Amino acid sequence: MNQPHPFDAAIHLEPQGEGHWRGHTHEAYGNMVGPFGGATAACVLAAVLAHPARQGEPIALTVNFAGPVAPGPFDVEATAARTNRSTQHWSVQMRQGTDVVVTATAVLATRRETWSAVEAGFPQAPPAETLARTPPLERVRWSSAYDMRFMQGPLKIDTPPAGEQDSVSLLWVRDEPPRALDFCSLTALCDVFFPRIFVKRASWVPIGTVSLTVYFHADAVTLAAIGTHHLLAHARAHQFRNGYFDQSAELWGPGGELLATTHQIVYYKQ
Amino acid sequence: MNQPHPFDAAIHLEPQGEGHWRGHTHEAYGNMVGPFGGATAACVLAAVLAHPARQGEPIALTVNFAGPVAPGPFDVEATAARTNRSTQHWSVQMRQGTDVVVTATAVLATRRETWSAVEAGFPQAPPAETLARTPPLERVRWSSAYDMRFMQGPLKIDTPPAGEQDSVSLLWVRDEPPRALDFCSLTALCDVFFPRIFVKRASWVPIGTVSLTVYFHADAVTLAAIGTHHLLAHARAHQFRNGYFDQSAELWGPGGELLATTHQIVYYKQ
Repeated sequence: MNQPHPFDAAIHLEPQGEGHWRGHTHEAYGNMVGPFGGATAACVLAAVLAHPARQGEPIALTVNFAGPVAPGPFDVEATAARTNRSTQHWSVQMRQGTDVVVTATAVLATRRETWSAVEAGFPQAPPAETLARTPPLERVRWSSAYDMRFMQGPLKIDTPPAGEQDSVSLLWVRDEPPRALDFCSLTALCDVFFPRIFVKRASWVPIGTVSLTVYFHADAVTLAAIGTHHLLAHARAHQFRNGYFDQSAELWGPGGELLATTHQIVYYKQ
Repeated sequence: MNQPHPFDAAIHLEPQGEGHWRGHTHEAYGNMVGPFGGATAACVLAAVLAHPARQGEPIALTVNFAGPVAPGPFDVEATAARTNRSTQHWSVQMRQGTDVVVTATAVLATRRETWSAVEAGFPQAPPAETLARTPPLERVRWSSAYDMRFMQGPLKIDTPPAGEQDSVSLLWVRDEPPRALDFCSLTALCDVFFPRIFVKRASWVPIGTVSLTVYFHADAVTLAAIGTHHLLAHARAHQFRNGYFDQSAELWGPGGELLATTHQIVYYKQ
């Protein structure tokens, strides 16, 4: 019998009555503390997409990590706050027992074809096939669930360069083992960047993402056409200040399609 | 008797019982349809900051514009979903009657001094004092509530240039009449950019912001020290595609302090 892909196991939700689901953290997506935030964010979106009242495809998702997620089961509640003709607004909470561990909002929409233009530049990069996989990090379990091929800004904690680095990373990335791209896996990929402070300071610093936002620029057909190809992923920080830094990133299809822009703000300790 | 500043009138909330407030749209912050989204977002934050259980200062705010806000009263409900030692997570709804018009989340935190670094570059710009105010737009009432001095990317709808423009704007901006900067006015200033599609296409296109996120990089003391000085504001889009475009922007103090990074996704019709 075929095993499901680990990502599908990680975002599997059991219905518990209308708008309620139960999920379970998955060891393949473990982080240094708790689960990989990208997997948690994907579970939030999975609940919205599974709701029978759902209309349209994701446009915007904001996931706030309110507290640590303990290994084990969690409950997700998704509520349609408002449904318009072409947009739908969702509020989502994830809880463990009585503790809220995630607050989130999502916007879905039915898109129509319009005048379109891409203004951001597709980064210059050699094809993914010409690069070797960058070894995953032993202490970050979820990094083994992705095939990452860095062109710029890999972690250099074991061989720290002299002086402070910038925080820019450019890499090709896909699920490992390969899995056809969809909105949930794209959401998780939006959190695949190692914390910018690890890159900038070439050291481990206690961190935790506080809030993650994803803007979806592509529809389901575009994602399906990309299938298991690598995405080109480009991230940077604007500022690290008194315990919080931000990150902005773009995820591109291999043919130069801008699939998602994504932003987060992250707590750090030192 | 002194009149309050119009912005203070626009974000004034009458307490209606714990976590509930009533506000009222203000004509000085009218938009082409409904109120200026920045004023609405500021009301969301004002409710959180006024809550007796509030701890800390804003780190992240996401405001989803779920439906049109009609001129008149509105109700705001703010709920602390989780309070940790140094962070607090809020869920907020704004309603008119039984219609949800806004869903929102906010994260507050108590910051401590840490290693800090700014990586984004402070844009080169002549001092605000050396530039003239760009005339506000007659059909956009709220634009009169700001003193904007454009260096790049003003609206050129009356004198459209040949060919497609980029969507970058760079301007100095402050409240008009002047008002000392605080978290609520900074929030509104994060939405002060005209829709990027107006800049790019030099034409009026039906639009509506769907979701706005603000990351706060400065504390109250830093904002107070800026007072009534102009902020340097820099915005761009990454992509316009099938009815939605995104915008990313930075707001800087006149001395080069990065105060906020902000992102939004906007519906457009054609």
